[in-house]
Amino acid sequence: MKLYVIGLGPGDDAMMTAEALRAIGDSDCIVGYGVYIDLIRHLTEGKEILMTPMKQELARCRMAVEAAASGKTVAMVSSGDAGIYGMAGLIYEVLAEYTDADVQVKVIPGITAACSAAAVLGAPLTHDFAVISLSDLLTPWENIEKRLRLAAEAGFVMAIYNPASKKRADYLKKACRIVSEHLPPHTPCGVVRNIGRAGQESAVLTLKELEEYPADMFTTVIIGNRTTKVIDGKLITPRGYRGVDGGE
Amino acid sequence: MKLYVIGLGPGDDAMMTAEALRAIGDSDCIVGYGVYIDLIRHLTEGKEILMTPMKQELARCRMAVEAAASGKTVAMVSSGDAGIYGMAGLIYEVLAEYTDADVQVKVIPGITAACSAAAVLGAPLTHDFAVISLSDLLTPWENIEKRLRLAAEAGFVMAIYNPASKKRADYLKKACRIVSEHLPPHTPCGVVRNIGRAGQESAVLTLKELEEYPADMFTTVIIGNRTTKVIDGKLITPRGYRGVDGGE
Repeated sequence: MKLYVIGLGPGDDAMMTAEALRAIGDSDCIVGYGVYIDLIRHLTEGKEILMTPMKQELARCRMAVEAAASGKTVAMVSSGDAGIYGMAGLIYEVLAEYTDADVQVKVIPGITAACSAAAVLGAPLTHDFAVISLSDLLTPWENIEKRLRLAAEAGFVMAIYNPASKKRADYLKKACRIVSEHLPPHTPCGVVRNIGRAGQESAVLTLKELEEYPADMFTTVIIGNRTTKVIDGKLITPRGYRGVDGGE
Repeated sequence: MKLYVIGLGPGDDAMMTAEALRAIGDSDCIVGYGVYIDLIRHLTEGKEILMTPMKQELARCRMAVEAAASGKTVAMVSSGDAGIYGMAGLIYEVLAEYTDADVQVKVIPGITAACSAAAVLGAPLTHDFAVISLSDLLTPWENIEKRLRLAAEAGFVMAIYNPASKKRADYLKKACRIVSEHLPPHTPCGVVRNIGRAGQESAVLTLKELEEYPADMFTTVIIGNRTTKVIDGKLITPRGYRGVDGGE
């Protein structure tokens, strides 16, 4: 009947919305990748749990739609915001295949990593910014490269998702070199690992230093623009209220 | 002592995080623009309220820092995420002026309009996107124009904040014309007004139709890219799980 597509935020209950918590509570069945289910294991007592491994996104969405079509209230969960590099789009695409199913989808937004990383680092996103994933599993690398280049040229601060994985160890370095065509090596940047979870780490560093940072799949990266600065160890992009233009 | 900079999300308590609610509860003093204070009036009983009119951002931040420096626990609130076109950056800048003050700042992120609007419209932000404000109060219009043009060229979906005001009635139309250099007139777009508040309205429309949409300062606009499509009235940018590249 009802299919909630829920963004859990970074993972800690305190950073979920009341709406997300309530929808999980109302659901008979929780669907998700194991790592996300583990984040809310304590909220799932007595509920049916449906999991698929990574890279089984399509199967997972079909599972969720079928469970909802069978009359259950279903919560499909993921970290961050379910609408940002998340499952919300695929759920709608899959639902369109089930023309007879009476399923109402409700997307419940969550705190995405750009926002939670920015809050840890200071206030780097107070002006225009771009969100870019370095994963080339689903996107040709040339497209990613083009976006990095144009985003730097446009003066966007960048929030970089999926900066690296075991197979893509040097992608962040490649990305740094591309944006360096438009940004000086001392441009302030920041990294946050395991946001809102045990073992959270963060650092403010220069674009040149970022090239060598050992990012992993739990890292979110912020690349500043020409106005971004470091104040008392915090990464700040001025909005311009003090007469400093927040543009380029 | 403690200064929380809190994003309230769209306005409804259900879309605030538990962390935001707890920080408001812990605070002696709430600082904000009147419209934001009104969103949480029911949570402020017995607390000191400090307000300034719009365009008094610097004065408001000084008020908040001074209250915290005097030993109070202070919550500076704004809608959406306090780090996105919000006060978080200015708070850090102002704090640096008060070299003797012992004030600990904590930014508590909230659901920003890009995320909440996307959830209402469907799933338009499941791939790379750019967030752009059309307000030229603090940014020269040429910079805004350049960012719109390069974002469209890069294939970013765009979330447009501050698309219009009384003085800037035609800015959305100007923006649509600029991105039309790179996007066809039938490109799917969406608008949401008063997200999560009384009188919420939304529409899915083409880029050509968006030109004539009477946006106001409570409207968030999404401009799709070449892969964005409409499925059963919902605005969807495929991530690529079905073999359709989410890029351009």
